Amino acid sequence: MNDKVLIVGAGAIGGFYGGLLAKAGADVSVVCRSDYDVAKHYGYRIDSYALGNWQLMPNQVLRHVSEYQGQPDYLILCTKVTADIDRVTLIRDAVAPCTTIVLIQNGVEIERELQQAFPDNLLVSGLAFICCNRNAPGEISHLAYGKLILGNLSGRQEPKTQYLRDLFLGAGIECVISEDIVASRWQKCVWNAPFNPLSVLSGGLATQAILQNQENFVRRVMREVCSIADACGHPLPADIVENHIALTRDMPPYKTSMLLDFERGHTMETEAILGNAVRAAQRQSVDCPCLESLYVLMQLLELQIRSSSLLN
Amino acid sequence: MNDKVLIVGAGAIGGFYGGLLAKAGADVSVVCRSDYDVAKHYGYRIDSYALGNWQLMPNQVLRHVSEYQGQPDYLILCTKVTADIDRVTLIRDAVAPCTTIVLIQNGVEIERELQQAFPDNLLVSGLAFICCNRNAPGEISHLAYGKLILGNLSGRQEPKTQYLRDLFLGAGIECVISEDIVASRWQKCVWNAPFNPLSVLSGGLATQAILQNQENFVRRVMREVCSIADACGHPLPADIVENHIALTRDMPPYKTSMLLDFERGHTMETEAILGNAVRAAQRQSVDCPCLESLYVLMQLLELQIRSSSLLN
Repeated sequence: MNDKVLIVGAGAIGGFYGGLLAKAGADVSVVCRSDYDVAKHYGYRIDSYALGNWQLMPNQVLRHVSEYQGQPDYLILCTKVTADIDRVTLIRDAVAPCTTIVLIQNGVEIERELQQAFPDNLLVSGLAFICCNRNAPGEISHLAYGKLILGNLSGRQEPKTQYLRDLFLGAGIECVISEDIVASRWQKCVWNAPFNPLSVLSGGLATQAILQNQENFVRRVMREVCSIADACGHPLPADIVENHIALTRDMPPYKTSMLLDFERGHTMETEAILGNAVRAAQRQSVDCPCLESLYVLMQLLELQIRSSSLLN
Repeated sequence: MNDKVLIVGAGAIGGFYGGLLAKAGADVSVVCRSDYDVAKHYGYRIDSYALGNWQLMPNQVLRHVSEYQGQPDYLILCTKVTADIDRVTLIRDAVAPCTTIVLIQNGVEIERELQQAFPDNLLVSGLAFICCNRNAPGEISHLAYGKLILGNLSGRQEPKTQYLRDLFLGAGIECVISEDIVASRWQKCVWNAPFNPLSVLSGGLATQAILQNQENFVRRVMREVCSIADACGHPLPADIVENHIALTRDMPPYKTSMLLDFERGHTMETEAILGNAVRAAQRQSVDCPCLESLYVLMQLLELQIRSSSLLN
């Protein structure tokens, strides 16, 4: 019998990685909102710069996890991490004793509430390094990158994590298991913490313009994030700031995910990326004034967005 | 013969204080741009919450200082302090040996370029604490406050400064001479440095909402400005932060001048308020990370505004 995979939050990221697992032979079902009608009738059309085009025809297309028939081996959560999504409630009805819960989500310190709610389930924490868009309901473009990092908070190599990695590798995407997935999250945060809020608060600058004009400040925020990771017991490589800067310099001008959410009027991952990092700093008594400034400003901007949408 | 006053930049502030000097018996002329046609024919109509209504009929209404007939005893510069206004060029043709140059302008360390350009003229540095609007060409509303602080950088009480103060007092407005006008500028900056950029970068919050949600951050920025003033040799009163916070709490929700400029698509006084403060900090090796963060963000926002106006 094939491995049963339930993707919760089947937008661009969920649809793409779910499509890969289906390609690798898994029995993939999806829970989705805005794509429901199209996905139910036609599935997902995936167009990848690296892996060609294919169709994902999910076994079950659901509006809610409670409608799922069976017990998933892997429940893969791909929603954004924002205050308006209660991730525990969202998945609870489909979590069986055998279910491995996999997060493919942004941010730092985002695992705790799921660990506490499902203490007996294996939890795999995952990060996607990918540029991929949802062009229309059921239509996903994979534009660049694609690497997935998976890890268990225990640091142990769990067979079910290895098995999942092998499925992804079999489908042709880079996938590695990190022995310190928490450090991997902090590494990604080193990039996200400056570029995401700066792109939004500047009113829409792409990464190139930010870097060309305020490289020193970007570096300062990055170093603050490194100090927090260090204080939390997950020291990052010494050259991480240099590497992120060099990588960004070589990228084409890029709109961050937070900027795309902002422009579309969607909730931003301010808390998962900045709020959790600042709270970790406060817990560890690490001073991070530039990061805190960005967090303060994002909170004020979100307050202003809420108040003006109440007025309209 | 009456004292000859030339107001350069006769918008709301210039028109109001010019109107007071005319009331006090001075021979007032104005240089203005957008109000020229109306001012030429009808003068200014001033409507003050405290001092009633009156008409300012300037002796000369000019488009450029070079058209001024005579030698002004006082040239009062009331423009904004921004990179796109060359203040020296703007006033040069009307500065006679007898002319006292008076600045009624925002910001810190804004006197140097004028001192250097006109080393033999007396320079009076002035700050207005006023809420006043230009409702239409030639129509000025004085809504609240009105106090003027004047001072000489030397700290000496110059007779021409005292005489000007007496004119203002005679017209019914509060006016004091500060023995340390530089410290007075830093005091005003303590308020401006957090509230102005926070109101803009949040997308339009008024002072109340900023204070209610991020008082700690506001205080932190205020304390940074105090440290810079201190390092520059102009220590501020110990209770200044407390006083500014209490004052703001008691004010009705207020849109900062930078926010009004932002909303109208006008150039903002980022450099005069934040840039000069940060440069003073760097000169004195004072760490001011929160203030610097605000300055970085304002620069990026202005870059984005320039690039999008080039695209349109």
